[in-house]
Amino acid sequence: MSREILESVWSASGIRLIGDGVPAGDVMAAQASLTHWDEWFPYWTGLGDTYERLAREALARNRRQSAGELFWQACLSHHYAQFLWFHDPVRRDQGQMRKVALYREAAPLFAAPAIRFDVPFDGFVIPGYLRLPPGVFGRVPVVIVLGGLESTKEESYRFENLCLARGLATCTFDGPGQGEMYFQAKLRPDFHRFTSAVLDWLEKRPEIDADRIGIIGRSLGGFYAIHSAAHDPRFKACVCWGVLFDLSYYDQMRDPARRGFAFVAGYDDPEKAGPYLRGTLDLSGQAERVRCPVYALHGAQDVLIPATQVGRLRIAMAAHPDMTFDIPEDGNHCCHNLYAVVRPRMADWLAERLGART
Amino acid sequence: MSREILESVWSASGIRLIGDGVPAGDVMAAQASLTHWDEWFPYWTGLGDTYERLAREALARNRRQSAGELFWQACLSHHYAQFLWFHDPVRRDQGQMRKVALYREAAPLFAAPAIRFDVPFDGFVIPGYLRLPPGVFGRVPVVIVLGGLESTKEESYRFENLCLARGLATCTFDGPGQGEMYFQAKLRPDFHRFTSAVLDWLEKRPEIDADRIGIIGRSLGGFYAIHSAAHDPRFKACVCWGVLFDLSYYDQMRDPARRGFAFVAGYDDPEKAGPYLRGTLDLSGQAERVRCPVYALHGAQDVLIPATQVGRLRIAMAAHPDMTFDIPEDGNHCCHNLYAVVRPRMADWLAERLGART
Repeated sequence: MSREILESVWSASGIRLIGDGVPAGDVMAAQASLTHWDEWFPYWTGLGDTYERLAREALARNRRQSAGELFWQACLSHHYAQFLWFHDPVRRDQGQMRKVALYREAAPLFAAPAIRFDVPFDGFVIPGYLRLPPGVFGRVPVVIVLGGLESTKEESYRFENLCLARGLATCTFDGPGQGEMYFQAKLRPDFHRFTSAVLDWLEKRPEIDADRIGIIGRSLGGFYAIHSAAHDPRFKACVCWGVLFDLSYYDQMRDPARRGFAFVAGYDDPEKAGPYLRGTLDLSGQAERVRCPVYALHGAQDVLIPATQVGRLRIAMAAHPDMTFDIPEDGNHCCHNLYAVVRPRMADWLAERLGART
Repeated sequence: MSREILESVWSASGIRLIGDGVPAGDVMAAQASLTHWDEWFPYWTGLGDTYERLAREALARNRRQSAGELFWQACLSHHYAQFLWFHDPVRRDQGQMRKVALYREAAPLFAAPAIRFDVPFDGFVIPGYLRLPPGVFGRVPVVIVLGGLESTKEESYRFENLCLARGLATCTFDGPGQGEMYFQAKLRPDFHRFTSAVLDWLEKRPEIDADRIGIIGRSLGGFYAIHSAAHDPRFKACVCWGVLFDLSYYDQMRDPARRGFAFVAGYDDPEKAGPYLRGTLDLSGQAERVRCPVYALHGAQDVLIPATQVGRLRIAMAAHPDMTFDIPEDGNHCCHNLYAVVRPRMADWLAERLGART
């Protein structure tokens, strides 16, 4: 079983790690040496410690850019140590907290620093980061970048860089069930209220043009992006990076993804989580309400989210005047295997729709 | 035999492709689908055509940054199609020429454009590119980036970006036996004269601080870097990225590398090329003459260049007052498997020694 999980993780997510910035050498060494899923967590945690040591050495020599990226490499290692580690919450929480702490060290060192914010909302505190495109004057457009089931505000650094290079600011935050927010709030039906609270905060920033705010989300984040745009007309562009329309396929889902959905919803037993998840995650009646331009990317070879989900979005958006579907025939989940092509393409679309300039 | 070559190429160079910028999805798909070396060239050429089509589509939509990087992806695909294709000069030349043409299209589109130059020298014309760090005012330091046996001026884009981000301009060119120059001049004992001719040209550029010029070369380029610095005291810093001190191990070398050395020296028969290569490629009596600070990186697990070569450089440089050896225990050839760590480290060292500012 443990070996099967490892194989399914490599098959579904191996290339994603590299696309998100894990060095290919680490992935290939892991593929050559790990034989069981049990070995996954300690392998990546060990690498995280190595990168952290290298980061501190670089910082001691005042090599700030390298230190920032090495802290971020350490952060990514701990992130991927725990990303599907739903069966062992103690170690998962350890990994989450190391990730959060290391990103906080990396953030001010980046060439385009990540500015930490904590937005109070409804008795919660929403944590996030804002990054501004270097060398661009005047108020800039911004895109909110959402994580998904197990991705968080620390994971999108590389994609953010594509946006920044095109004149877009970026804003990431953890919503209910995600990253740091998981300790405050589990997955809930009003994720959009948290997005809107962040939008309220963004509108007041002097660097931001409040009339040019977009949103993008990946995998489960693709659901949240459309869900948020449906409830808040202030969004001027929306990208659904992996079309998750509803959880009608929950019973066909496999571990660790299925256990993960239950986990972030606060259920120990995936069986018992089904009704809540299916009722909560459904874009029917929501997608129809989106008024801004929408771009949906989905890999035709995705084995995690079935292609029938794209069909549901097509039907719901049939009357939408500005809806683009980009469905590469050879794309896997979120087209991670085509990261060098599809990620710049989504950033280009956002920059065009939000009138970004470099 | 064809399968053996394929396996040895993956083992020695698989990770290098990703470090240099080939998308990991392409490498993994190739590893999963290619069974013989014969399939190598057409696989990468086909991908090159795909990226070129995507680049032209992006350009037609005025997505200049993406178009630039897609032309460069196309260029890299054709480069790696032919990089060890020494047994088939007709297709190899085709690949070289496609690579050169595609990089010429990419060059002006980069966020930091690559400015083409052609320096007349001794009846030859040396082709190269200069890139300047964006947003840096005044005269800047520059580092000359040398290719090796089969790497050329088009291949170092990613490493150049690390230098640019640290305030260093970059200059690449093809010397004798390399890239476009191969059609004019084969490998010869006075490579350093070509480097110095480029340096003469660089000194006259108004953007460049002639007192702060460094050099770095990879693999055979590591030889050329020290060789060039030994003959030209204007270099203020030298990085040997992979220590090739001499070709005393030529007879133990395997194809396609051995055939490659013969090829670039203008010999069809690797047996007959031995004496010329061993006589021409030898740093004895040269390394001792280098006066500027030197940084040498070599992977202790390198199976292409034996560790004894590092020992020879240590002896030759024993009296040098500012010599750093960086020999990671787990590094392979040129530490390609550690690209995310060692490449920024070399760029940091160059930026420090050349007083670069961002």
